[in-house]
Amino acid sequence: MTKNIKIDEGINIGDGSFTIIAGPCAIESREQMEKTGAFLAKLGIKIIRGGAFKPRTSPKSFQGLGLEGLKIMAEIKAKYNLKFISEVMDPRDLEMAYDYIDIFQIGSRNMQNFSLLKEVGKTDKPVMLKRGMSATIKEWIMAAEYISLEGNEKIILCERGIRTFEDYTRNTLDFMSIPILKEKTDYPVFVDPSHGTGRRDLVLPASKASKALNADGIIVEIHPNPEKALSDGSQSLSFEEFENLLNQLM
Amino acid sequence: MTKNIKIDEGINIGDGSFTIIAGPCAIESREQMEKTGAFLAKLGIKIIRGGAFKPRTSPKSFQGLGLEGLKIMAEIKAKYNLKFISEVMDPRDLEMAYDYIDIFQIGSRNMQNFSLLKEVGKTDKPVMLKRGMSATIKEWIMAAEYISLEGNEKIILCERGIRTFEDYTRNTLDFMSIPILKEKTDYPVFVDPSHGTGRRDLVLPASKASKALNADGIIVEIHPNPEKALSDGSQSLSFEEFENLLNQLM
Amino acid sequence: MTKNIKIDEGINIGDGSFTIIAGPCAIESREQMEKTGAFLAKLGIKIIRGGAFKPRTSPKSFQGLGLEGLKIMAEIKAKYNLKFISEVMDPRDLEMAYDYIDIFQIGSRNMQNFSLLKEVGKTDKPVMLKRGMSATIKEWIMAAEYISLEGNEKIILCERGIRTFEDYTRNTLDFMSIPILKEKTDYPVFVDPSHGTGRRDLVLPASKASKALNADGIIVEIHPNPEKALSDGSQSLSFEEFENLLNQLM
Amino acid sequence: MTKNIKIDEGINIGDGSFTIIAGPCAIESREQMEKTGAFLAKLGIKIIRGGAFKPRTSPKSFQGLGLEGLKIMAEIKAKYNLKFISEVMDPRDLEMAYDYIDIFQIGSRNMQNFSLLKEVGKTDKPVMLKRGMSATIKEWIMAAEYISLEGNEKIILCERGIRTFEDYTRNTLDFMSIPILKEKTDYPVFVDPSHGTGRRDLVLPASKASKALNADGIIVEIHPNPEKALSDGSQSLSFEEFENLLNQLM
Repeated sequence: MTKNIKIDEGINIGDGSFTIIAGPCAIESREQMEKTGAFLAKLGIKIIRGGAFKPRTSPKSFQGLGLEGLKIMAEIKAKYNLKFISEVMDPRDLEMAYDYIDIFQIGSRNMQNFSLLKEVGKTDKPVMLKRGMSATIKEWIMAAEYISLEGNEKIILCERGIRTFEDYTRNTLDFMSIPILKEKTDYPVFVDPSHGTGRRDLVLPASKASKALNADGIIVEIHPNPEKALSDGSQSLSFEEFENLLNQLM
Repeated sequence: MTKNIKIDEGINIGDGSFTIIAGPCAIESREQMEKTGAFLAKLGIKIIRGGAFKPRTSPKSFQGLGLEGLKIMAEIKAKYNLKFISEVMDPRDLEMAYDYIDIFQIGSRNMQNFSLLKEVGKTDKPVMLKRGMSATIKEWIMAAEYISLEGNEKIILCERGIRTFEDYTRNTLDFMSIPILKEKTDYPVFVDPSHGTGRRDLVLPASKASKALNADGIIVEIHPNPEKALSDGSQSLSFEEFENLLNQLM
Repeated sequence: MTKNIKIDEGINIGDGSFTIIAGPCAIESREQMEKTGAFLAKLGIKIIRGGAFKPRTSPKSFQGLGLEGLKIMAEIKAKYNLKFISEVMDPRDLEMAYDYIDIFQIGSRNMQNFSLLKEVGKTDKPVMLKRGMSATIKEWIMAAEYISLEGNEKIILCERGIRTFEDYTRNTLDFMSIPILKEKTDYPVFVDPSHGTGRRDLVLPASKASKALNADGIIVEIHPNPEKALSDGSQSLSFEEFENLLNQLM
Repeated sequence: MTKNIKIDEGINIGDGSFTIIAGPCAIESREQMEKTGAFLAKLGIKIIRGGAFKPRTSPKSFQGLGLEGLKIMAEIKAKYNLKFISEVMDPRDLEMAYDYIDIFQIGSRNMQNFSLLKEVGKTDKPVMLKRGMSATIKEWIMAAEYISLEGNEKIILCERGIRTFEDYTRNTLDFMSIPILKEKTDYPVFVDPSHGTGRRDLVLPASKASKALNADGIIVEIHPNPEKALSDGSQSLSFEEFENLLNQLM
């Protein structure tokens, strides 16, 4: 029986509905988030994603706007009545980020950053724990235990693909993790079809499969202008493509 | 546009329908196949699977009944009006097997057995080409070319999972291969949820995901008595479980 | 040209010699470390390993003695004139750990814990950066850049095996990373034959291969009583086995 | 205790010496093999490699000269007193190939082509069995059993790298397979540093590691003009590079 995680009045994850979270990979500017917030609100989407702290493979890539990004989001959230999910990377940032973020995301690279897991485990906010890119399902469940043992049971697990030899896609989505996690835990299970495939044209089929497998939702990258995105443009949907995805899923 | 492969009057693969093929991993006895044939005919299943030549990792494992198995099937096919798919492993067996088998299956281990591919490419029978367990999609498509260049375009591609570090499942089904192959080729695409997961309890969810992704069908292992199967019992459905799967998919 | 990293007067890594670091996976007790320190000093080993903070897959496994472990080491180091390498997992621990540890180790799970990398990058201590278990060589080099860009160039890279489908060994040592890193960077390159294989009987051959490939050294797990080790006993050498390894390598 | 496999008077594999086999990936012309044969004979190399039947991923790539290639080799062998190892891919070719080839090679793609394994198992010629690119060591040993159970115990196992996520090298050489196979079987173990790395600059370090691990030999690709090779040019050594390798190894 999947645990119901209340995000806000009338916004639940794990209640049997299929929740769609969307937003850009990274918060880049007020204008970008204004457009995105207005667009999502119009479509009835309740939770927006956007990275302020970006874990990038190279230290020379764009690292996110940090606190400035969070402040942009404070405005957008209020204006469009949205809840906000965003990644935290450093236990020392949690206190500062706490007031801005409604769902803490732990990224793939930090799935076994146990200090960070314990720290979000001490908060009362929901945590989305992404699967490590070479983590077994067993290791992933044990990583979730690092959070729950600190007292926080509001955990959402997010399949985002594993690293294999296949290079046509950025990662290989292990869709069978959905029924396996449903069997072994009572946490809601999400899928990230954007990072999971790395290809815009596969986001829709990956979302359909997720829904068919009774995932509790998906978290999708969209951008007002994917060609100009500072990160992950090739897997981000345009607004038009995202509307099409919504129509096809509903 | 997916190619329509006619198996018999009124039996097509790739025509937009979702074809379900079922049967045991290996032909073990006349009695086993009699029960299976009767059961499938009752349910309206048109194509039966069953291995006569079994490629087993160890030479000491059961290797299949060979020609004796094919002869059993000749009877069952006629009695229950079924078409028969079965694996061939050796180019020298093709002539003998030709009269018994309606769809030649090339197993995962032989995906790059180019002599065998060319040989089935010279026949006029449909060929189901399973993905090699560590083959990229690109290599798989090129393997299909070995068949088509000999003149046989009746090719069905079958995703059966790839080898990864995850060991909860026998293989990791790469479901994204379905939309990718649909984009890159015009061959029908099947999924083998039995080998793809190696676990009876995952056959149904894997089948649902296959259907949601517009696969052209699935090939499922069933056995009148899975606990006593000579191979792959842990991933075979009982008759009752298979009926449940049919009901859930329809 | 490999950079020479001075650990102490007369103790260098990267100067063309083959440095052997040894010690237990985890600091378990004063007695254990006393025995180990005396043993290593007798053999002329200059650097001892031992974990005070242990990143364990399960939160219920032994997590290390923490500060208590570091204090034990302060005594042992002084008594036997040894330098000490130990893992840090949390940027907040660095200040406290600084006085005890001579070489900071960043473990495999934290290779892309960028906050931690930056923090050790701000110190003046040598850092051993272990390869992530599914990191490409390119990603590993970029992780090292997170350290060097903060001003700390005293980086030692340590190959510890990657995750593959082969399950006879715990990981698959990618020995070719040694010449590749020597070509692409000027950092000394170590090998961890203990974690890299997970099997006591393979530590010696893995060490021989490392030396033949001009690695700058190895870091080996030893334990006065491997059968009773609180972690990684099956890959730890007994003192006798370690002496044999030294003799075979020299 | 490693089995000694006699190739000819005074030519043994598995007798404790380190045997170097060399030659081109594919036999391309009489002139190419004439140059190669003369060169190897001059250096005292006793066994030449060269493919007549080439298993290529694409059917449109050069497939080898077939029987014509074998006939070229008959001449070269006689003229320079060399033994000849070459791949067979089809059980139907064995009779024809028998008179030309001294050591049958089973390629990576055919490691589990059980029909072919049984067929070489019925001959009295040594067989070099390459590891499948995603085969576990256990599966590899069981593949060898398909040969030995037919009566042919003259088996040489050849590590040639496994498929992983690391893409800097063509494959990841699993060097630990050498001591593992030495422990578990009594067959000689070779390494293919050319396919195993896919990079000319890594052939020498891979060869050194093989020797340090007591492999029984290596099989190396060389070409009189690597830039013009019809296959695998980027991993082939020039004659000069090969002489350098010999000097460094001895």
